[in-house]
Amino acid sequence: MFQSSTYKSRRETLKKEMGSGLLLFLGNDDMGLHYADNAFRYRQDSTFLYYFGISSAGLSAVIDIDNDTTILFGDELTMDHIIWMGVQPTLVDKASQVGITNVRPSKELSNYLAKNKGQTIHHLPAYRAEHQLKFLALLNEQPGSQNPSIPLIQAVVKQRNIKTSEEIVEIEKACNITADMHIAATKAISADLYEYEVAALIEYTAAKNNAELSFATIASINGQTLHNHYHGNKCKDGRLFLIDAGAEVPSGYAGDMSSTVPVSKHFTAKQRAVYEIQNRMHLAAVAGIKPGLPFTELHNIAMRELAEGMKELGIMKGNIDEAVREGAHALFCPHGLGHMMGLDVHDMENFGEQWVGYDGKPKSTQFGRASLRLGQPLKPGFVHTIEPGIYFIPDLIDKWKGEHLHTDFINYDELEKYRDFGGIRNEEDYLVTETGGKRLGKKIPLTPEEVEALR
Amino acid sequence: MFQSSTYKSRRETLKKEMGSGLLLFLGNDDMGLHYADNAFRYRQDSTFLYYFGISSAGLSAVIDIDNDTTILFGDELTMDHIIWMGVQPTLVDKASQVGITNVRPSKELSNYLAKNKGQTIHHLPAYRAEHQLKFLALLNEQPGSQNPSIPLIQAVVKQRNIKTSEEIVEIEKACNITADMHIAATKAISADLYEYEVAALIEYTAAKNNAELSFATIASINGQTLHNHYHGNKCKDGRLFLIDAGAEVPSGYAGDMSSTVPVSKHFTAKQRAVYEIQNRMHLAAVAGIKPGLPFTELHNIAMRELAEGMKELGIMKGNIDEAVREGAHALFCPHGLGHMMGLDVHDMENFGEQWVGYDGKPKSTQFGRASLRLGQPLKPGFVHTIEPGIYFIPDLIDKWKGEHLHTDFINYDELEKYRDFGGIRNEEDYLVTETGGKRLGKKIPLTPEEVEALR
Repeated sequence: MFQSSTYKSRRETLKKEMGSGLLLFLGNDDMGLHYADNAFRYRQDSTFLYYFGISSAGLSAVIDIDNDTTILFGDELTMDHIIWMGVQPTLVDKASQVGITNVRPSKELSNYLAKNKGQTIHHLPAYRAEHQLKFLALLNEQPGSQNPSIPLIQAVVKQRNIKTSEEIVEIEKACNITADMHIAATKAISADLYEYEVAALIEYTAAKNNAELSFATIASINGQTLHNHYHGNKCKDGRLFLIDAGAEVPSGYAGDMSSTVPVSKHFTAKQRAVYEIQNRMHLAAVAGIKPGLPFTELHNIAMRELAEGMKELGIMKGNIDEAVREGAHALFCPHGLGHMMGLDVHDMENFGEQWVGYDGKPKSTQFGRASLRLGQPLKPGFVHTIEPGIYFIPDLIDKWKGEHLHTDFINYDELEKYRDFGGIRNEEDYLVTETGGKRLGKKIPLTPEEVEALR
Repeated sequence: MFQSSTYKSRRETLKKEMGSGLLLFLGNDDMGLHYADNAFRYRQDSTFLYYFGISSAGLSAVIDIDNDTTILFGDELTMDHIIWMGVQPTLVDKASQVGITNVRPSKELSNYLAKNKGQTIHHLPAYRAEHQLKFLALLNEQPGSQNPSIPLIQAVVKQRNIKTSEEIVEIEKACNITADMHIAATKAISADLYEYEVAALIEYTAAKNNAELSFATIASINGQTLHNHYHGNKCKDGRLFLIDAGAEVPSGYAGDMSSTVPVSKHFTAKQRAVYEIQNRMHLAAVAGIKPGLPFTELHNIAMRELAEGMKELGIMKGNIDEAVREGAHALFCPHGLGHMMGLDVHDMENFGEQWVGYDGKPKSTQFGRASLRLGQPLKPGFVHTIEPGIYFIPDLIDKWKGEHLHTDFINYDELEKYRDFGGIRNEEDYLVTETGGKRLGKKIPLTPEEVEALR
C-alpha cells in the first residue's frame, strides 16, 4: 500500500478528468472453489486497488463528484471473524490509511444510489459473474445488457496507462522475482522431470518470495500451444521447453516473462537457427522502443525479422514486406508482440483492448494482428512486454496448407521438416522512457549462448 | 477419471432414488482473477465430476428420468482453441469415456428445458455467482430466491457420503501427499523463516506431486486464529507453528491434515502439557469411531478430554460433564471435531450442513457445537476428519470474561497465564469401516515425542 496521498491524488485526478457524475466502483468478493467458504486466493479488483488501496472482500466505493464526497461502503468485522480470521485493523482505520473518512455499512449503498437517481452513474465493465449480479441488484442492469461508462473507462485508462515512479518500484520487484522463477527453472529442466515438477519449482520460487502468480504458469514441451496449462508430460531430450510465468507482489503489481530452454543441455543446430531468428526479432523490437512510435510498427519490425529469417531457412519466400503486410508470417507467430502490464498482467484487459491498447481506434482483424493487444503510439510511463515467438503448430499448418493460403510466401514442403519443432518465445518487460525503453527486473537468458551457460 | 461403468452406475442409482423428474446439473466455468481471460485454476463442480467425470469448463448436463435420456450440453473446440490451448479429445470422445452418447450444443439447453416445462426440474444450490446467473437465464429463478431441490440434495448426499473402494484409493493418494506436505514443513520450520516460506514449501510439496491444494493453506505462528491465511510473520523461537493444509489429486479427491510444531527444536513444559491434552482428545476420538455412533457423541468424548485436561491445569473447574454440556469448553475449542471429506474437503458443504452432516435433522446452536459440521450416526464408507484443537484466543477470552460467562467452570485468573500461548491442532482423515476407523494415508507426527523426533 502506498501513502494515503497517492490514493487521494489519484482520485482527484480522476474527478477532474470526469468533471461530473457519480462514479461507482465494485470491489471483488471471495469466490468459492468447491463451495462458498472454500475460496480461491483473494484478489481485489485492480481499479479498486488503484483508487482505494484496500485489499479486502465485501467493499464498494462511490466518488460522488456532484456532491463532492467519497464514500467507502463495507462492514466491520464481527467476533466470529476475529475467531476464524484473526484480529485486523477496523475498516475505518483501513479507510483512513487511504485518505477516506466517510465509511458506511454496505447495505446503505443501494439507498445512496436510489437517492441520487438524477445523477449519471458511471461504472466499469463486469468481468466476474458477481459484478453482474451486483449491477442487477443495484442498478437493475440485466446480465448481458449492462452498460459500462466509456468516459470512465477512458479516464481510468489514461491514468493507469502511465506508471509513476512508485509504481515502477513495485513492478520492478515483481520482475525481479519473475526473473528468478525463470532462472531456477532454466537450471533445473531435464529429461528426468515431468512438466508439473518444473511448474512446481517456478511457483515455489514465487511463493518463497511472498509473491503470488500474476497468471497461470505455462511450462511445457509443447511450446507451440500458446497458452498451454497442461503439465502432465515427461520432459524429453531433444525437445524445447517453453516457460511463460510471472509474479505478483503484495501491492498487486505484476511481472511477466517467457523463456525457452532445450531439455538436453544444448540446442540442436536446427533449434539454434530458429532461436537466433527469435532473438533477432526480440532485439530489433527492444531497440525500436521510443515515445511516439505506434506499437503496431514495433510489431511489424519484429515480424519482418521473422519473415526474413524464415526466408533464410527456406520456409518463406517472395517479397518480405508484402508477406508481412498480407499476414503470411502469422502462421509462425499468431499472437502480438506485447501488451500493457501493471496491476493486471494484461493491464485493464477487462475494459476492452480497443480502449487500453488502441486509444479507442479500431484494431486490425487480420489473423495474428487481431491478437495484438497494444497498438497505439508509445508514451513515457507505459510499461509493456516484448514477447515475439516462433511456433510450428501442426493443426494450423495443415489448415493453411489445405486452404492453399499464402502459397506465394510459404514453402509448405520445406515447412514439413519443422512440423514437430515445437515453439520458442522469450519475453521481457519494458518501461517507455523519454528516450527509449528500459528493461524492468534482472536479465534472463535471451540468446542460445546465455541459455546454455545456465544449463 | 474412473471407467465409464462407474459413472453409468452412479447415474442409474440416482435415477432410481429420484424416481421421476428432470435433473439439471451445471458444470463450473472459468472464473476471472483480474479479467475474464486471466482465470483462476479450473475446478469442475464436484457433483458434476461425480456423475459426469469431465473436468472442462462450459458444460451442463440433464438426466431426464421421465424421458429416459441423459444429455451432455457443451461445445466442441474451434481452431482458435487449438492454437491457444492445444489439441484435445473432442467433447463427443470425452462423453463416451463416461458412458454418454447424447451430446448437444450448449445453446440447446434452454430450449430443452422450455420444451419440458411440465416436468419437475431438480437442481442443486448455487454456490458461485455464475450458477445464479445461469439459473436466472435458464429457469428465471431470481438471485436470492432460487429454489434448489431438497429431494435431489438428499439423494446426492446419500450416494456421495458412502465412499466406494475406488474412491478410497484416490482419497488415500491425496492423504499420502498431504502427509508429505506436513512432514516437509515439520522438518523445515525455524526462526529463520517467514510463515510464507513454510507455506511455499508445503505447496511445493503438493505441486511437485502433481496435486493442487484442496483448500487455502494455513501456516501460522498464530494458531489461535482458526482459519488464518496471513503468512507475513517471521517465525519466532518459543512460538508454536500450526499447519492446516491438504492436497487434491487430479481425480478431484481431497486430503486434509493439521499439525503443530514448536519453532524451537523442543516444546516448552507448558506447551508439552497442553499438547498432551490435545493428543488425549485425538486418541480418544479415534478409538471411539464405530458405525452407529453419532458423531456428536465422538465430539463430546473429545471435548470431555479437553475439559478434564484443562481442569488438571487449573484453567477449568467444577463438574466436567456439566461444563461440556453447557459448552464452557468451547472457549478453548470453538470448532467441531471433524467433517465429511471426499471430492470437497468439506464434502458437499454447498448443500448445507444439515443435509450432509445431520441427515436433515436440526443442529445445535450452542457456541462451538454450532460449528460441528458432522453430527449423524457414522456409517461404513463415511470418510471424515478427526481434528480436535486447543486455542487461547485473547479477544474471545476478554469477551467471555467481560460477560462473566461460565464462571463456574472457568478460572479466568489462571487462564491469563496462557493468554499468548497460541493454538494446537492435529488432524487426520479416517474411513469408517464395519468395525471402527481406518486412518487414510501415511502417519504424521501426533505426539510431542513424534514431532520432536523430526525436528
